[in-house]
Amino acid sequence: MSTTLGTVRARYELWGNPASARARAEALAVEQSHEFPPELAPAAAAPSRGVVADLEVRGPELAAATVDYPAELAGGEIGQFLVFLFGNCALLPGVRLVGLEVPDALATALGGGPKLGVAGLRRVLHAPTRPLLATALKPVGLGPADFAELAYRLALGGVDVIKDDQGLGNQPWAPFAERVPLVAEAVARANRETGGRSLYLPSFNPPVDEIEPRLRLALDAGAGGFLVVPGTGGPDLVRYLAAHTPDDAVLLSHPAFLGGFTVSPTSGIAPEILFGPIQRLLGADAVIFPSYGGRFTFSEEQCRGIAAGCHEPFAGLAPALPTPGGGMTVERVPELVEFYGRDVLLLIGGALHRGGDPRRAAERFRAAAEAL
Amino acid sequence: MSTTLGTVRARYELWGNPASARARAEALAVEQSHEFPPELAPAAAAPSRGVVADLEVRGPELAAATVDYPAELAGGEIGQFLVFLFGNCALLPGVRLVGLEVPDALATALGGGPKLGVAGLRRVLHAPTRPLLATALKPVGLGPADFAELAYRLALGGVDVIKDDQGLGNQPWAPFAERVPLVAEAVARANRETGGRSLYLPSFNPPVDEIEPRLRLALDAGAGGFLVVPGTGGPDLVRYLAAHTPDDAVLLSHPAFLGGFTVSPTSGIAPEILFGPIQRLLGADAVIFPSYGGRFTFSEEQCRGIAAGCHEPFAGLAPALPTPGGGMTVERVPELVEFYGRDVLLLIGGALHRGGDPRRAAERFRAAAEAL
Repeated sequence: MSTTLGTVRARYELWGNPASARARAEALAVEQSHEFPPELAPAAAAPSRGVVADLEVRGPELAAATVDYPAELAGGEIGQFLVFLFGNCALLPGVRLVGLEVPDALATALGGGPKLGVAGLRRVLHAPTRPLLATALKPVGLGPADFAELAYRLALGGVDVIKDDQGLGNQPWAPFAERVPLVAEAVARANRETGGRSLYLPSFNPPVDEIEPRLRLALDAGAGGFLVVPGTGGPDLVRYLAAHTPDDAVLLSHPAFLGGFTVSPTSGIAPEILFGPIQRLLGADAVIFPSYGGRFTFSEEQCRGIAAGCHEPFAGLAPALPTPGGGMTVERVPELVEFYGRDVLLLIGGALHRGGDPRRAAERFRAAAEAL
Repeated sequence: MSTTLGTVRARYELWGNPASARARAEALAVEQSHEFPPELAPAAAAPSRGVVADLEVRGPELAAATVDYPAELAGGEIGQFLVFLFGNCALLPGVRLVGLEVPDALATALGGGPKLGVAGLRRVLHAPTRPLLATALKPVGLGPADFAELAYRLALGGVDVIKDDQGLGNQPWAPFAERVPLVAEAVARANRETGGRSLYLPSFNPPVDEIEPRLRLALDAGAGGFLVVPGTGGPDLVRYLAAHTPDDAVLLSHPAFLGGFTVSPTSGIAPEILFGPIQRLLGADAVIFPSYGGRFTFSEEQCRGIAAGCHEPFAGLAPALPTPGGGMTVERVPELVEFYGRDVLLLIGGALHRGGDPRRAAERFRAAAEAL
């Protein structure tokens, strides 16, 4: 069978003595595709093998290998795409995925990426140009009515996207089926009173059996989309939600668990790839990541790279909205917008609860964004 | 609401100057549960917060923090369990999960673990005491008939578990719906001829929409269980399969992608936790991991730890069978059994194709295991 979808090109850093880089690169291309001794592989299987397209020594401890894979290796599925892109080699120290090119035809076959993207999100929120605002309902342990009241006040204050904390699931304190309708109704009530367009995104991290029932329940209740945790809910869940929700449903991805691939500088996946192109391939309209200057440790350069990975042309997909969070404050809004630009979804969680009424804090948040 | 399921106890290594370890441990306990400023958290939410139970300085760059979480934080779901166990802190360099205790009641609520475990697997395979044998169908790129012929010969040779390579999905060269029935029939034919009990485990890594159709198709075709890749298919998929397959269906987990958490020594999840207790919580009967002395880099000590994590009492769950692979050979069978013991599933893939007819190689593999 010939390959007609084109080529996926991956760039891996290989950390360690470059003397072995050629052999490591060749082994990597085999490991990620055939995983079979090349000299024994039947000729008929040749078109399905990864090949080293380029190898470059970058320093005394670093080489960069470019590996080309036939796009058919994905079989049109996100799970299998991740298997050949970074499946077995995730287990190899010193191998880091730092670059990715995907043919448009494969991106379409994998689901077509963000349904709304930046332009769609702005249309749904009736906010054509200003920075967009998000916050989280927490802490876990409160009851459904507490969350509804909190969401009501935050919506009155003008926050665009009010999402569940990723820590909210189906715990006994606020079961999904009780919490989601109450909160959705509270946000709708605030919108009726203000004429605003705040959206409520429940956290969606269910067991497989609960995907359909919870999806129906949340949409029937008026949820504006979902917060998804691809690291724990499964990467394909984002695509599934994009395919099975109304056109105006917003999908926001959360980095919990999966983000662990980014912390070692010499292995895993570079954050600008994981939180940019990969999340867009999954279908996320907006991508949460921990910004510089908060509780986490990404540098300004990494955050700039993530934002670029969300915005820049990739595989014919719509851009996604970078959503910096992880310890942001209202005081930093001007600086963050200066840094990320106006096409950003600013996520402020716990800090919005400092200093009294969340409605007032939300109003200050909104005013800070509108003043720019 | 009081907590009645008990306490999940997690032990994290904190790498870096121990002078800040107390503050980091306290912040970690909050990050993984409330993710909310403690001084602002309503008193009603107190029972849902993680607490630091112990902190110990281990060296000039290492401390160990024990954090207790109320088991209710999982809401009885694997996705949410992983969110509080290692969700946000996966993004923190220098935090490594190295210990885990789970109350029996929570393990039951999460699905009850391996349905077969070691004893059940031996019963299904009619192999009460000898080391068990596995191999993989590859390389991707062959057609369904090629795989069926290969599986037939490997089954004739007496390999117990014949699994798809994790690289096989629904690619055009051998689509799932064509490959799986042909291979299952070939293995059944070999069993009829030999009186053996070889099982075929298709790789199961589908999009969400395809879970049910492919599960039905494979079971109807006579698959003996599934190879699952929780890193790309989603961790809950293993539990789902355990709940929706016959009692004698074998679930074998593959480390692709997810295994990337183990490669940095100062972050991520220790392999003896990820490939032991966590896979058992998901419901895996056997757990593939890259053994020492192959193409990957785990040490003997790490492999001993993984085997112990599969076998030792944990949360009232059945043990799982450690399945060392990643470059093993028939010649090493005596050494591997000496090292891992007889309760092991030995996985030899590509090397079984060196030196001619796979049936003869499989016979040598079986003879090596029976000679012990």
